[in-house]
Amino acid sequence: MSETVETILKRRSIRKYTEQKADEETIKTILRCGMSGPSAVNARDWSFVVVNDPEELQKWARASGRAGTIMAGSAFSVLLCADGEREFKRAPEYRIINGSIAGQNMILAAESLGLGSVWLGIWPQQDKIDVQKAYFGLPDTVTPHSIISFGYPAENKTGQPHLDYEEDRVHFNKW
Amino acid sequence: MSETVETILKRRSIRKYTEQKADEETIKTILRCGMSGPSAVNARDWSFVVVNDPEELQKWARASGRAGTIMAGSAFSVLLCADGEREFKRAPEYRIINGSIAGQNMILAAESLGLGSVWLGIWPQQDKIDVQKAYFGLPDTVTPHSIISFGYPAENKTGQPHLDYEEDRVHFNKW
Repeated sequence: MSETVETILKRRSIRKYTEQKADEETIKTILRCGMSGPSAVNARDWSFVVVNDPEELQKWARASGRAGTIMAGSAFSVLLCADGEREFKRAPEYRIINGSIAGQNMILAAESLGLGSVWLGIWPQQDKIDVQKAYFGLPDTVTPHSIISFGYPAENKTGQPHLDYEEDRVHFNKW
Repeated sequence: MSETVETILKRRSIRKYTEQKADEETIKTILRCGMSGPSAVNARDWSFVVVNDPEELQKWARASGRAGTIMAGSAFSVLLCADGEREFKRAPEYRIINGSIAGQNMILAAESLGLGSVWLGIWPQQDKIDVQKAYFGLPDTVTPHSIISFGYPAENKTGQPHLDYEEDRVHFNKW
């Protein structure tokens, strides 16, 4: 089994973090991984707002509803955005897939570097999209996709295997 | 740098494959990784149609338009589906994100096991969705999300670094 497969299988959503901050190199490696996924017609139609300043993080957390509690305790949180400036005009919604790929790359990179993370949903919930658009004053072409919080884990979920392989979700050769 | 980060950064879309087939254990490991991503409210709202029978693969490839050429040469290809049976009723479109996460996990697992892959878009293009729904006779609740083709690489892209880090796509603390 490769380290990558192990990382994928052991990843769990981590919602509690220590006080340890993440250094700039770590944050940049995670972002670089976010930018290294495939994207439809290579549109690379995403943007990232990284909030790691402690005061800004608290302020943003307070503005973000229920998810804010997790964000407030994170080392940094990222507003992953679908960026319409670059979207594939014939099928702009591919940006949702492209953004998700970027997000999962970031989560796995973080996991392999010792950071936990949790994915906090925004799109397609319009109320949550509106809150984030207003908070950051995003251009009209930019759609908040998801928030991902990162930090060094203060909870241990390795003893909690979840349901991985579900035979009934797999069909061979025919539905 | 972790092996996971290296895998993420070196992955390129591979469209040409050798004749080598993938064994069942490899396919199952890749699927297991697909099922190990996070999903909104833990809906796990996906299903997978794995086509690895050579005759079925040729037949499916012929029915799948332009992407068929790649599929025909693959060791196996997977129709990744968003499965409405389990979707989060308040925001069913989360299934698109959940499916994308599953897909990227599969691609990275494959890469780390020596297989190349390429993501072939279906959703949101209605014509492509309709072709796949009809071909497999999918239930109404099941939406074709993407096809991913896998195989042992017959092209080498390691010498072709692509644009990874784009400073202008990153905003710190404020947009």
